[in-house]
Amino acid sequence: MERLKCVIQYDGTNYSGFQIQPNGVTIQGKIEQALTKMHKGEYIRVIPSGRTDKGVHAMGQVIHFDTTIQIEAFKWKRALQTLLPADIKVKSVEKAEKTFHAQHDTIGKEYRYFVLHQKETDIFRRHYTYHVPFDLDVAAIQEACTYVLGTHDFTSFCSMKTHIKGEKVRTISEASCIKEGNELIFTFKGDGFLYNMVRILVGTFLAVGKGYFQPEDVREMLEAKDRTKSGMTAPANGLFLWDVLYK
Amino acid sequence: MERLKCVIQYDGTNYSGFQIQPNGVTIQGKIEQALTKMHKGEYIRVIPSGRTDKGVHAMGQVIHFDTTIQIEAFKWKRALQTLLPADIKVKSVEKAEKTFHAQHDTIGKEYRYFVLHQKETDIFRRHYTYHVPFDLDVAAIQEACTYVLGTHDFTSFCSMKTHIKGEKVRTISEASCIKEGNELIFTFKGDGFLYNMVRILVGTFLAVGKGYFQPEDVREMLEAKDRTKSGMTAPANGLFLWDVLYK
Repeated sequence: MERLKCVIQYDGTNYSGFQIQPNGVTIQGKIEQALTKMHKGEYIRVIPSGRTDKGVHAMGQVIHFDTTIQIEAFKWKRALQTLLPADIKVKSVEKAEKTFHAQHDTIGKEYRYFVLHQKETDIFRRHYTYHVPFDLDVAAIQEACTYVLGTHDFTSFCSMKTHIKGEKVRTISEASCIKEGNELIFTFKGDGFLYNMVRILVGTFLAVGKGYFQPEDVREMLEAKDRTKSGMTAPANGLFLWDVLYK
Repeated sequence: MERLKCVIQYDGTNYSGFQIQPNGVTIQGKIEQALTKMHKGEYIRVIPSGRTDKGVHAMGQVIHFDTTIQIEAFKWKRALQTLLPADIKVKSVEKAEKTFHAQHDTIGKEYRYFVLHQKETDIFRRHYTYHVPFDLDVAAIQEACTYVLGTHDFTSFCSMKTHIKGEKVRTISEASCIKEGNELIFTFKGDGFLYNMVRILVGTFLAVGKGYFQPEDVREMLEAKDRTKSGMTAPANGLFLWDVLYK
């Protein structure tokens, strides 16, 4: 028995999220199907670094699974890719320690969020950006980003639908927004993210950009520990799980 | 009764082409459905500048139709868009001459073809580019492009499945290929294009880039008037009907 660590990309557009569920096609379902086929019908369980929601994409999701198949790691990439649809891509497969755990061993994650900031919609970018046709004060957004840096209780930026009862303190090492052409690109790096946290942060920052909030209001939102004080949850389609870090 | 000229964009990924057909969802079908709804059930026929195939996109397709609805042209854009899916976009609607004909009055068209030229696939560009992982001699491709400029019989670059029995002489005013980052962008402008002509030109030029043909072979292909002498038909997903010109 060998444990493999695998980096995958996916276009979340046509999936009901990462995690297997009774109704709806999922990324986990597709990967487990492929692995089960490779293992001649034996069910192979896949563990991700964390779930992603319906419509959310990944540039560098990490999963692990155990296998009895005796092929070299470098041949795995192609073997697995052959059995996957065109919207899921295997970036790498490597042998891991037997104790490696894609979820428990993460020490950090990076998310990016893409906003299409122009008057007109772009039908060719509709699955990969959130279209915002309004004027935005980008400098105000950039100032707002600075208030979430460091260690805070992010209760105000966590969906009330979360199942996590534990502590909501997280440390954010990067929260930034750059303008590139007609796109705003948000980058968030931290030791962990709560349910919908990135999407609520982006929704709040965009509300700052529109003038509904002042940048420094973000500080008060954090202190309030109250989801109703922050902004709306930005849509899933602009969000990419960009990278997962391990020791 | 008024005739309207309408510029539309579409993402052809999920359609069986422009033209209505018994099986499969088409762009024409979607637009006629929307117009018929606006006209309280009266069937409204849509005439395009020309068809596009399954999977082909449009940045500036032109259609015309007749209407009895008495609203100002500038309100039409929004009224129609509201009834269309997210992958079809109305760019403009304007009142046209009663004799205007979207197909017969064209004096030229522009197509672009996008090649993703890198080793790795890009799942987020898969519907909008043709992925070519091989080395390509771009200078040879650019030279090959020059041989199709001017007026030629393009029989060798017309699908044998064409229904057109007429003359296959066309005048090409631009045929170019530029490298932009990891993309090759082909641009073709001419007074008209035969069935699959752009895709066969691109397939042939890429074969030149790979060294299967010499650039000057294109001249002989034109002279041969024989489809079997030219290259393969490049896939639909890289092709965009970019613009349609009228007097």
